Amino acid sequence: MKIAILGGDGFVGWPTSLHLSQLGHDVHIIDNLSRRWIDTELGVQSLTPMDSIQERTRIWHEETGRRIHFHLIDIARDYDVLKNWLTENQPDAIVHFAEQRAAPYSMKSDRHKNYTVNNNVNATHNLLNALVETDTDAHLIHLGTMGVYGYSTVGAAIPEGYLPVGIETMDGATATQEILYPANPGSIYHMTKCLDQLLFQFYAKNDGLRITDLHQGIVWGTHTDQTRRHPQLINRFDYDGDYGTVLNRFLIQAAIGYPLTVHGTGGQTRAFIHIQDSVRCIELALKSAPERGDKVKIFNQMTETHRVRDLAEIVARIADAKIAYLPNPRKEAAENDLVVKNDQFLQLGLNPITLEEGLLEEVVDVAKKFAYRVDRSRIPAASAWTKDIKPTLNTDPEGKALKSAS
Amino acid sequence: MKIAILGGDGFVGWPTSLHLSQLGHDVHIIDNLSRRWIDTELGVQSLTPMDSIQERTRIWHEETGRRIHFHLIDIARDYDVLKNWLTENQPDAIVHFAEQRAAPYSMKSDRHKNYTVNNNVNATHNLLNALVETDTDAHLIHLGTMGVYGYSTVGAAIPEGYLPVGIETMDGATATQEILYPANPGSIYHMTKCLDQLLFQFYAKNDGLRITDLHQGIVWGTHTDQTRRHPQLINRFDYDGDYGTVLNRFLIQAAIGYPLTVHGTGGQTRAFIHIQDSVRCIELALKSAPERGDKVKIFNQMTETHRVRDLAEIVARIADAKIAYLPNPRKEAAENDLVVKNDQFLQLGLNPITLEEGLLEEVVDVAKKFAYRVDRSRIPAASAWTKDIKPTLNTDPEGKALKSAS
Ligand SMILES: NC(=O)c1ccc[n+]([C@@H]2O[C@H](COP(=O)([O-])OP(=O)(O)OC[C@H]3O[C@@H](n4cnc5c(N)ncnc54)[C@H](O)[C@@H]3O)[C@@H](O)[C@H]2O)c1
Ligand SMILES: NC(=O)c1ccc[n+]([C@@H]2O[C@H](COP(=O)([O-])OP(=O)(O)OC[C@H]3O[C@@H](n4cnc5c(N)ncnc54)[C@H](O)[C@@H]3O)[C@@H](O)[C@H]2O)c1
Repeated sequence: MKIAILGGDGFVGWPTSLHLSQLGHDVHIIDNLSRRWIDTELGVQSLTPMDSIQERTRIWHEETGRRIHFHLIDIARDYDVLKNWLTENQPDAIVHFAEQRAAPYSMKSDRHKNYTVNNNVNATHNLLNALVETDTDAHLIHLGTMGVYGYSTVGAAIPEGYLPVGIETMDGATATQEILYPANPGSIYHMTKCLDQLLFQFYAKNDGLRITDLHQGIVWGTHTDQTRRHPQLINRFDYDGDYGTVLNRFLIQAAIGYPLTVHGTGGQTRAFIHIQDSVRCIELALKSAPERGDKVKIFNQMTETHRVRDLAEIVARIADAKIAYLPNPRKEAAENDLVVKNDQFLQLGLNPITLEEGLLEEVVDVAKKFAYRVDRSRIPAASAWTKDIKPTLNTDPEGKALKSAS
Repeated sequence: MKIAILGGDGFVGWPTSLHLSQLGHDVHIIDNLSRRWIDTELGVQSLTPMDSIQERTRIWHEETGRRIHFHLIDIARDYDVLKNWLTENQPDAIVHFAEQRAAPYSMKSDRHKNYTVNNNVNATHNLLNALVETDTDAHLIHLGTMGVYGYSTVGAAIPEGYLPVGIETMDGATATQEILYPANPGSIYHMTKCLDQLLFQFYAKNDGLRITDLHQGIVWGTHTDQTRRHPQLINRFDYDGDYGTVLNRFLIQAAIGYPLTVHGTGGQTRAFIHIQDSVRCIELALKSAPERGDKVKIFNQMTETHRVRDLAEIVARIADAKIAYLPNPRKEAAENDLVVKNDQFLQLGLNPITLEEGLLEEVVDVAKKFAYRVDRSRIPAASAWTKDIKPTLNTDPEGKALKSAS
């Protein structure tokens, strides 16, 4: 298959590109490299030393004899370029990772809010619009987030995208209708993924586009079978206050002997998936494409859930670290339960890597190995969710001021 | 009150501005005049001779001694200008009409789809973002559409925005949650209004913005008490294939002795409201502002529903015209019922003008009076909803080709 990987230079896109190339597909990465520019803007860098995309694809070719093509296109801004590319290349499938993906970054300032809305809505809408316009019958796989569900508080298990609801009709009967699970996003970033959902629903219905939306949990882990093949194929590892996920930040704190900082009570429950499983899920989704005229196929792409404080305890135990509690910069419930259905991927044969098995490798082979590269001033969380919440978390647990992180 | 009317040069915005000015409010129109540019793009014009906004506000001042201020701002593109305007003016209320509002125009081509998504999403998001950033505690009233409900086919009465749904919890009980009525938009234009809803929900929840969303039916009628005061205060009247609503198009067809063209079976049911009632609803909504921290207040702003073929019959009877049936360019159900709750505005004192009472004035004082200005080539509908539907409606019912409408 000819597969376009939009955002293929990113954290999940890169190992996905390698995985699909190894499986024999003709892989084309499309990326505007904005994520590298944001590193520059924030003055942060991946913990792992990350080569240019041109160099990485060259090494992949050297190692495997296989080519991964790279095209520098901003899919949110260069609609006509995207359209021409589709017309000329007519891919069989498209995996769409190309969005601004950090919730704290999306809440940093009004400029960052506008950027995130613009980039993400236009990226997705340009793509859908161009697929119709160029008559490209590609299977579109999009990466959404568990965050679209807004961590429901009614204590129900989160189904895979759709919810049957009973609506009272005028003659007093109850008609059942299947609806998109009601959106309740917790940040501008998450909101853009809710907007995406409506765009997909419309284009599937109106134009018969074949779309799969993967509602993904927090991806952890660094290495996959392919990135391990050469040091310069290594994946990025973000630990800063904007892009570093909670687990990565714990790993780094442990590696440099800093206490693990838990925001609030740590009672927030989050869903997780290992990067190796994430790329495998995309392989499985590719094999299970919807037909023209089908509604959007939605999978929950996650394998386990943990409370933040339990995560901290696992890392503290494995890496021998302490835990410190800080105020929460996010506007969210202090404690929440989260039970998520993921039967579809399990049925398709996914065999998950658990945190308990995989975490030691992260501690030893990634966090400790590259600890010398850590910039300590980048560890505190920086964005406050509203004007009432003070963005004063740039202090360490003992109250000493750290260098500002933004 | 100091009130900003975004899109105040448009069909509903203009009479709203006059109405609120007459009530003694300090009215500021903000508009980028894009609607006038679209007239130019399409080579169409209002049936009624419409003066420039500068001239219209001058005449209003001459007639009443009251000033309406005009500010040329593109709220979708000029974020910083909008922000400065809000900082300097700190309005008490904002009425937001400033979006591309024609479904057929939004489906014309890929360029028009992108324009509509960009303009509408950015207009609304820039506004919300700027309100938070400038600490402007204004009551925001937005004009949405009945079309967000997607004309539900289960035969239930459409509630005012929210639907209580039962969700099965893990312990087998049923928890009731109130959700936004599930979106099912029928065009790119309608979809942008669904996206708006999620933006409002987020900013009300996260930042405590006070927002009212009016889900409006098709507005008909031309004159209000204020536009009648001087011939140059007259409102616009659109009858072309893109912006002309079904009723306006029937009125014009009748006025020039052309058969009334019904698309499909005419079994589609639509909701309507007279322009005089529309401006009155905005007055009522202004008086009934939500508090900080409230969820978005949603009203259905419509007063009666009719099937398209019944409408055609009413107009045919009053204006002595024939009816012709043509294929439907829209992708929609051939027949649908529509029952809409509008209790909130009735309780606040709205006393609706019915089609039966008001239509004769439209036939005589508008359609017949200005029939000499009608451009016949503009009457057929032009946009096809999908690539499978042929945009070949530019023929009259007897099959004679008319001049292309786009
Ligand atoms: N990493 C996670 O834990 C996680 C969890 C859930 C969902 N997701 C989703 O998966 C996708 C990929 O996440 P990631 O962690 O790899 O993010 P990332 O930021 O590392 O990668 C995104 C890539 O997209 C590119 N991009 C952004 N906007 C673009 C545009 N307009 N045109 C072209 N390229 C553009 C960036 O340059 C970057 O290389 C995102 O959509 C994200 O929302 C990620
Ligand atoms: N007319 C109807 O039957 C009807 C029905 C339901 C809902 N609505 C809604 O009511 C609102 C007003 O409708 P209308 O019929 O008066 O439309 P209109 O097109 O006549 O007026 C819209 C006005 O907004 C302005 N505008 C558009 N984008 C702008 C931008 N980016 N910055 C500044 N100004 C901008 C236009 O120049 C125009 O003057 C719309 O949001 C529409 O969706 C209208």
